[in-house]
Amino acid sequence: MSNFIFQNGTKIYFGENQLNNLAKEIKVYGTKVLLCYGGGSIKKIGLYDKVIAELKSGDIEVYELSGIEPNPRHTTVNKGAKLCKQNKVDLILAVGGGSTIDCAKAIAAAANYDGDAWDLVIHKAEVTKVLPIISILTLSATGSEMDAWSVISNMDTHEKYGFNHKDMLPKVSFLDPTNTYSVSAYQTASGSADILSHIFDSKYFTLKPKLEMIDMVMELLIKTVIKFAPIAIKEPNNYEARANLMWASSWALNGFINCGINHATSCHAMEHELSAYYDITHGHGLAILTPRWLEYVLNNETAPVIYKFGKNCFGIKDGLSEIDGAKASIKKLSDFLFNELGLASRLSDLNIDETHFKAMANNACKAKGGVIDGFVKLTPEDVENIYKMCL
Amino acid sequence: MSNFIFQNGTKIYFGENQLNNLAKEIKVYGTKVLLCYGGGSIKKIGLYDKVIAELKSGDIEVYELSGIEPNPRHTTVNKGAKLCKQNKVDLILAVGGGSTIDCAKAIAAAANYDGDAWDLVIHKAEVTKVLPIISILTLSATGSEMDAWSVISNMDTHEKYGFNHKDMLPKVSFLDPTNTYSVSAYQTASGSADILSHIFDSKYFTLKPKLEMIDMVMELLIKTVIKFAPIAIKEPNNYEARANLMWASSWALNGFINCGINHATSCHAMEHELSAYYDITHGHGLAILTPRWLEYVLNNETAPVIYKFGKNCFGIKDGLSEIDGAKASIKKLSDFLFNELGLASRLSDLNIDETHFKAMANNACKAKGGVIDGFVKLTPEDVENIYKMCL
Repeated sequence: MSNFIFQNGTKIYFGENQLNNLAKEIKVYGTKVLLCYGGGSIKKIGLYDKVIAELKSGDIEVYELSGIEPNPRHTTVNKGAKLCKQNKVDLILAVGGGSTIDCAKAIAAAANYDGDAWDLVIHKAEVTKVLPIISILTLSATGSEMDAWSVISNMDTHEKYGFNHKDMLPKVSFLDPTNTYSVSAYQTASGSADILSHIFDSKYFTLKPKLEMIDMVMELLIKTVIKFAPIAIKEPNNYEARANLMWASSWALNGFINCGINHATSCHAMEHELSAYYDITHGHGLAILTPRWLEYVLNNETAPVIYKFGKNCFGIKDGLSEIDGAKASIKKLSDFLFNELGLASRLSDLNIDETHFKAMANNACKAKGGVIDGFVKLTPEDVENIYKMCL
Repeated sequence: MSNFIFQNGTKIYFGENQLNNLAKEIKVYGTKVLLCYGGGSIKKIGLYDKVIAELKSGDIEVYELSGIEPNPRHTTVNKGAKLCKQNKVDLILAVGGGSTIDCAKAIAAAANYDGDAWDLVIHKAEVTKVLPIISILTLSATGSEMDAWSVISNMDTHEKYGFNHKDMLPKVSFLDPTNTYSVSAYQTASGSADILSHIFDSKYFTLKPKLEMIDMVMELLIKTVIKFAPIAIKEPNNYEARANLMWASSWALNGFINCGINHATSCHAMEHELSAYYDITHGHGLAILTPRWLEYVLNNETAPVIYKFGKNCFGIKDGLSEIDGAKASIKKLSDFLFNELGLASRLSDLNIDETHFKAMANNACKAKGGVIDGFVKLTPEDVENIYKMCL
């Protein structure tokens, strides 16, 4: 069992009608806000108007950056940072899903840096000072509302990397399940696959010893997604389903389920290349990759871990051989992702062919120091093979 | 389902040999420390010497308050506050179990108050400024290492109350399971009963709707205690058992499992009176009270909640009537506490008779505004009846 450090100071307002606390929380940090959001869905659901009304009621000066992309670009980060510098903004308010919050974090870091924000992403320059961040979440998926990471894409170089700094952790996040009622079936499914992957990748699927209590928490989070994602897809306005998915998405990545297993994230590393080259939905890429990855790494050593997952999360029966049990577990996961959640199961469904697989596999491994050292070590050749299994 | 606010910024170092981070963490807050500990068990296990060595290596000036009682007194708090004022201490370092940490929190608050510390406990005066607190935990029980509450006793008036302030949350806590190896079977059992009670009281046993995900977390924490407490009692140096109990004790009270169910803590309210009058071990008092409390509040409305507990945590079979299922569940809990953990089951075993029951019942309810509004509302008469069931 490994040692670990836990710390997460984000203040969470969970539930309906908590926005009346927004102005009060902002004023702890200042009165000039950069409001960041995406394509305008927050206007459709009326959230934009509510936020503006709250900000006005608190005499808060608002600057806006809209149009943040689903895989946020470093160029957008630069635009936001410029707005902060020009207007001497005190804090960033992100209203949206993980992409908007990730972009806000990068802006918060870049607002105190004179060069290209991309330098910070690739560690050419170090993050020093970060503006405070407050988020209002509208999509249960990335966990960005309660972690210190930001994933930014550079479409010129086909690169997508995560970077972090302790002060990039949001100070306050508002989690109102009703703000996710309008999330489409497709985005709900992709977000749910993302939550699962945060639990699987680098934490649940491991050959290292785990703290049993945390292992059980991971399994119940997986079961929470398995139960409530299909309900949220069928009944988008089901508060209970949206609430369980929302808090599970935060728990998957806020450190509660860490217990010192700090190996590389295999599927996330492979997916970042897919998004960097093809700009696909992150969670959908993860859904396609995950069962193939498990199939690829299946061996006598990994089989018991995979079979245990199937037994405890999907009720796969006891008494099979470890390998057969693991295969049945992977099959069940595929059924869940591709049939129950309805996600297209192949990269070819997303018009992706093998043109860039070699380059993508090399990049994925390069970003992790040559080899992805996760559940099982993956070389560029392994990664290319897994991509091919997804065609 | 209720709204809730979650925030817990304590930084946790979990695992062995993490004390080399102690001086670094202290220096964030200052260089003059009041070291608080209890009866000297930290000297027997060598922890005192390790701590002193770390403090010396960091050139930290140390003042000491030893002899903190199992139910810490307000007079001891006053002594500690005086030491802080005289020596202009920057922060409090608590090394011990919940009593030591609770006392350290009260000292941290009283160090900035000119009157009797008891004024702060009973809200005659409000806590304003609090010295930073760092803790090194040696007993898995109270959760004090990761919450903002302090429970202090006044033996002159037979009163024992909790009070809290956001800044009484420890800044950093060191959770090293090996520091609990020397905890006796009796204290391990009592601590485990305390952990269970933190989950039961005001959170798990409720008629209000719960977030399913959190309900499952509570059940797995209960199962963690049920599995690992007996192992820790039989094999005191079992790292896995001690580690699971230790992290479970923090989770029971750090807010992770809160989901807006803020009703009164029934058993804690009743137990505080037992400790205030008879100075018994808190967890043992809770163990004696809990099954009788459940028996007393058992009715058609509460039975399904109690039966569900038995099914999910103890594997009580399905298909019984709700009342019979609940009775079987309470029986199983009693067996666990009194047979498996080996705790004496009656107040009379602790030389407690009914002399003070009426006064204690009145006090317990008075502290909660006249009625204990928990799982089921309890009047002073109800509380007295429950005490009598425990004889």
